[in-house]
Amino acid sequence: MAAWTYQRRSSRAVPVGDVTIGGGAPVSVQGMTKTHTVDAEATVAQIREMAEAGCQIARCAVPNHRAAEELSAIKSGSPIPLIADIHFQPGLALKAIEEGVDGVRINPGNMEDGNGLRQIFNAAGERDIKVRIGVNSGSVRPRKGLEVDQEAEEARQDMAQLMVNEATDCCRLAEDIGFRNIVLSLKGSDVTTTMRAYRIAARRTAYPFHLGVTAAGPPRESIIKSSIGIGGLLAEGIGDTIRVSMTGPPVKEVEAGIRILEALDLRERTGPEIVSCPTCGRCHMDLADVVREVQKRLEGMQTNVTVAVMGCVVNGPGEAAEADVGLAAGKEGGFIFRGGEKVRKVPASDLVEALVEEVERLE
Amino acid sequence: MAAWTYQRRSSRAVPVGDVTIGGGAPVSVQGMTKTHTVDAEATVAQIREMAEAGCQIARCAVPNHRAAEELSAIKSGSPIPLIADIHFQPGLALKAIEEGVDGVRINPGNMEDGNGLRQIFNAAGERDIKVRIGVNSGSVRPRKGLEVDQEAEEARQDMAQLMVNEATDCCRLAEDIGFRNIVLSLKGSDVTTTMRAYRIAARRTAYPFHLGVTAAGPPRESIIKSSIGIGGLLAEGIGDTIRVSMTGPPVKEVEAGIRILEALDLRERTGPEIVSCPTCGRCHMDLADVVREVQKRLEGMQTNVTVAVMGCVVNGPGEAAEADVGLAAGKEGGFIFRGGEKVRKVPASDLVEALVEEVERLE
Repeated sequence: MAAWTYQRRSSRAVPVGDVTIGGGAPVSVQGMTKTHTVDAEATVAQIREMAEAGCQIARCAVPNHRAAEELSAIKSGSPIPLIADIHFQPGLALKAIEEGVDGVRINPGNMEDGNGLRQIFNAAGERDIKVRIGVNSGSVRPRKGLEVDQEAEEARQDMAQLMVNEATDCCRLAEDIGFRNIVLSLKGSDVTTTMRAYRIAARRTAYPFHLGVTAAGPPRESIIKSSIGIGGLLAEGIGDTIRVSMTGPPVKEVEAGIRILEALDLRERTGPEIVSCPTCGRCHMDLADVVREVQKRLEGMQTNVTVAVMGCVVNGPGEAAEADVGLAAGKEGGFIFRGGEKVRKVPASDLVEALVEEVERLE
Repeated sequence: MAAWTYQRRSSRAVPVGDVTIGGGAPVSVQGMTKTHTVDAEATVAQIREMAEAGCQIARCAVPNHRAAEELSAIKSGSPIPLIADIHFQPGLALKAIEEGVDGVRINPGNMEDGNGLRQIFNAAGERDIKVRIGVNSGSVRPRKGLEVDQEAEEARQDMAQLMVNEATDCCRLAEDIGFRNIVLSLKGSDVTTTMRAYRIAARRTAYPFHLGVTAAGPPRESIIKSSIGIGGLLAEGIGDTIRVSMTGPPVKEVEAGIRILEALDLRERTGPEIVSCPTCGRCHMDLADVVREVQKRLEGMQTNVTVAVMGCVVNGPGEAAEADVGLAAGKEGGFIFRGGEKVRKVPASDLVEALVEEVERLE
């Protein structure tokens, strides 16, 4: 609808299986399994559920060698690219790469072994897979013996700067051996630090970004923090792939990620969008009830249409006319709009039915 | 916690009763009543509920003269400043000002009468109250006979530009008669248009901004659109007062607004913040269950503390140590952190109890 489109930050294109991250590719939605990775069957089943919900890249924790050994089985059962999430032990990343994953994610904050990191970048380079350098505020360590620039003393006070420094140091280590299939993430457990870290990094590097607010909490809290952090950055043009973190089922994380992209017109909807007013002293019907009824009736419908449900004559006709199909309630009944034109006047009792009929005509 | 603080856009300070909007004042949360304004008793009762939930400014729709006549009764019963929301009829705004409201909101898109607008600004100036010039994409009209600048043809394609033009034209009309107690809002029904409109306006005017995404829809949709739109702008330093629009009870709107501010550290919490990890293949307990239990136990607690509930040793100890009180689960039981120090090792069965005990010690 909007004539204006995003000016997205230009970033390097990094392929992950058949999905491309960065380089102008559509922003992808990632998810992470919560099963024990040693249970390949349960893990594949969960990845399938996530993929069904719209997830485009799956990630599994690989806490030990036994888990790493299951990766080729998981990979062959997965309908989407598979990333191995590795902490502490470079050897596990090497094993995961051997098993044929599409990428690994490492956390430089807990992998201080420069040789181990070089081996990972070398192995990833040979197989042409990607490495996400995933910094988390929870494991950022004070810099030891590294070259310290002028801003370092100030930056020491600033978690966002520390995170970016840790990421760029690790990038340099990869670049020194010619490896550049890198995706970066800079996740803080508070929204402000996270956004600030990505903004700083956006000025300092061209690698694509994986966005997320880590440890965002239970669903009610996560949805707000993730929408602000991920959505706010995307609205500035920053971000190439996203993952919503939530203490809850992985499918809910995927759905939240998709809704954030849809809200910013960065992903085509697979069903109707309901635009509805909050109601006020001007409204003469129980609009929340009408909206719930309309939602129920349109559930599962695959048409990508905007449906406006408005309670009065102030913004009602305008919003209703901007939408593909709209309802503007009045004192007695209301008006149905289609494609910007008022098409019917209907009594209150028939409003939902009339609206649904008009939507169905667009299918 | 963050050493870095927001660089907020500097804006003119506009007093509304005992609340100041702009000029560096804390970002305030507004709400709108959904009762019929002619029912002063029900309206006052709803404002009291909203104020109880943390709402700082209340707004009532004034669709007709009978509603306007109730405003002094509503004002005297309201514990927070009262704004009259006026469309179409300048006379209703004049009547509302006479009745003693703390401000009026007008929509220039449906009040084309320049003389009527001038009368409103004059009356507001005499009583020293504020006027919100509240543009909505649903009622933006093509510009008729107004001076058109060079960008106008291009802007015609761009709803965000049209909205800003409508707002600044109306500001000029007020300034011509010396009135400057203005707050601006530029609400689009899609997030992108809304954010873009405020960003353009931020470069063109110093008036404080009331942020919102209009007709954001039912709670599930609204929370995402509002968090991105309002939260994303606030994270850029833009915005002085906010209102979440939601097809649902006004108290829910207020609560969502407060959570957006809290997530950005723009409003002091009145209770504990739970930071919890999403869990993954590394987690050996049902963390979602632990989090729900912790939430239940901490409900109603007034202490402004951060409580981390982490499922493993990767980010667990780091996050748990960054929080005021934290729990990092291990294979058997876990560790409790306080003030960055590991203070206790406890078996799984006692984790919640031990965590709550530590939080209670901070009360």
